[in-house]
Amino acid sequence: MEEVELSPPHPHEIRIKVFSSSLCRSDISAWESQASSAIFPRIFGHEASGIVESIGEGVTEFREGDHVLTVFTGECRTCRQCTSGKSNVCQVLGLERRGVMHSDQKTRFSIKGKPVFHYCAVSSFSEYTVVHSGCAVKVSPNAPLEKICLLSCGVAAGLGAAWNVAAVSEGSTVVIFGLGTVGLSVAQGARLKGASRIIGVDTNPDKCEKASDNNLCVPVFDVILLNFLSQVIKRITDGGADYSFECIGDTGMITTALQSCCDGWGLTVTLGVPKVKPEMSAHYGLLLTGRTLKGTIFGGWKPKSDLPSLVDMYMNKEIEVDKFITHDLPFEDINTAFSLMREGKCLRCVIHMPR
Amino acid sequence: MEEVELSPPHPHEIRIKVFSSSLCRSDISAWESQASSAIFPRIFGHEASGIVESIGEGVTEFREGDHVLTVFTGECRTCRQCTSGKSNVCQVLGLERRGVMHSDQKTRFSIKGKPVFHYCAVSSFSEYTVVHSGCAVKVSPNAPLEKICLLSCGVAAGLGAAWNVAAVSEGSTVVIFGLGTVGLSVAQGARLKGASRIIGVDTNPDKCEKASDNNLCVPVFDVILLNFLSQVIKRITDGGADYSFECIGDTGMITTALQSCCDGWGLTVTLGVPKVKPEMSAHYGLLLTGRTLKGTIFGGWKPKSDLPSLVDMYMNKEIEVDKFITHDLPFEDINTAFSLMREGKCLRCVIHMPR
Ligand SMILES: [Zn+2]
Ligand SMILES: [Zn+2]
Ligand SMILES: [Zn+2]
Ligand SMILES: [Zn+2]
Repeated sequence: MEEVELSPPHPHEIRIKVFSSSLCRSDISAWESQASSAIFPRIFGHEASGIVESIGEGVTEFREGDHVLTVFTGECRTCRQCTSGKSNVCQVLGLERRGVMHSDQKTRFSIKGKPVFHYCAVSSFSEYTVVHSGCAVKVSPNAPLEKICLLSCGVAAGLGAAWNVAAVSEGSTVVIFGLGTVGLSVAQGARLKGASRIIGVDTNPDKCEKASDNNLCVPVFDVILLNFLSQVIKRITDGGADYSFECIGDTGMITTALQSCCDGWGLTVTLGVPKVKPEMSAHYGLLLTGRTLKGTIFGGWKPKSDLPSLVDMYMNKEIEVDKFITHDLPFEDINTAFSLMREGKCLRCVIHMPR
Repeated sequence: MEEVELSPPHPHEIRIKVFSSSLCRSDISAWESQASSAIFPRIFGHEASGIVESIGEGVTEFREGDHVLTVFTGECRTCRQCTSGKSNVCQVLGLERRGVMHSDQKTRFSIKGKPVFHYCAVSSFSEYTVVHSGCAVKVSPNAPLEKICLLSCGVAAGLGAAWNVAAVSEGSTVVIFGLGTVGLSVAQGARLKGASRIIGVDTNPDKCEKASDNNLCVPVFDVILLNFLSQVIKRITDGGADYSFECIGDTGMITTALQSCCDGWGLTVTLGVPKVKPEMSAHYGLLLTGRTLKGTIFGGWKPKSDLPSLVDMYMNKEIEVDKFITHDLPFEDINTAFSLMREGKCLRCVIHMPR
């Protein structure tokens, strides 16, 4: 815990009083990353809700007091990608990897004049943060900020992968690798689209138990299976699943996912960000026989355009969010959240800022 | 050239008098394959037209004298794949790799009682051949057999990749790696769907010249470019093509093809069968930013269901076939065809059987 200074919002930026921020696996991955591009000191946190505290010059979309979700992959609404109607990979405000603001490539945080870097253009593990106005979205003031922060990344990413990217069809068979919040959200999305069999795979028996309790999928856990995983899946699905989802962040598992889906129309969707080996590989025969491999960031949602309606769906009880929250912690216990996630003992830990 | 014996058709098989058979790159790849599974002696040839000479027990679909195209990946019309409406990867009569007939795993060819193996269930480099009745398709008797053999593999595969697999859209940008018959057929397919820019890449200047002459795409040839190929393509297409097609059979080029298409909706279709390294690889970031990699065999056509209408389109001059025929050779000069293709000096050489 450190005191940082935060500048007022620059033009087209807003300053947000963070309300709640859940810990996502990517925060840990980026922290532990051995990549030469690792940038420190930085403030993690990218799955958050908050209230607009002040607005920069030229901001017309937000006002002080607006309730918002942060957006780790922004939407400028004017670039070729944003206007395409078929992409959420904004060319202007897309995933920020250098720890700086989109507009001037500088930081707004500092300690004694030295820059403290941002993470994914959000940095929500702070009482206040500054984000580009394209990296936040206004939501209904009636929605509980302490819950909907999960829609800022994990839950939305999983639902979108099932709905937007795979377009899971009724009666289909789905296999999901990794039963964290993202994987279970894929399961929820697939179930809501009428998938008839949803098989979940995780090497952590706790995760399988939670999946079972939540009745979201049929979990498969057996360490001895790992080497034969795709064969086992193919056998129990009579030739392979219609859809497979890689939600672990393991490029080796992308190959297994591709092997686990069926000839002809099998579709594998990758959601994870790999922690180690960044290259995936696959035998050409898997493709020749009609498989498709598709990647996605944030489940294909255009965050600004689509998040408000997801919040509304939550308010109408059409989608579940609360069941993925296993722990609520005050800001000062944030390191407990990191430990719980590292040990695989939680789904989402929500960190609540001092009110 | 050797004399072989050919048994009469077994039940559900037909014996065909081969009329014409063009040489496809896969015939050479299989011949030169270092794979331990290589099977010899065998009779190559899988892109052929012919006339039914006799029918086996239980065959009701064909009669003596019917004009047919051979089908290297069969269609049983009853399995889960065939009945799915979304796959051409028949589980029963799909790609045969062991050089035997689907029904009894034996050969119909022999020399002095010793088996001579089949290739892709067709083996059309022979005056007569026996195929499963699911591996041939009846076509209009008015269609010129000496031309339409190209629709039995290469030309159809390319058109189908553009139409069925990628569904190339109007005004889009397409890049094609490999300007043989398959690649140029993709170009034809893309052009007919209204693609506004079609860029072809080949390291063979002759191929680029033919592509240019045929006005099917803008060819790019420059050996020094190879290492920077994807960067060059991304620059000239302002961020990457909408669609890229790998028509070489080089898993390294699949990676380049994926790198050459755009964020958000870039789609790479692989058509080639690699001669050497069977594993393709790709950085996860290419997927994360919304690219899709899709494989296909025979352009997604269900051969029995779809080939007759392609032949009709040819008869109605809606698609080009003749321009891909660069050489016509009598059967006894078949080795010339192999040399021409090895040296990259032809598109399709059609080999005509003695009438
Ligand atoms: Zn996240
Ligand atoms: Zn944009
Ligand atoms: Zn072929
Ligand atoms: Zn079938």
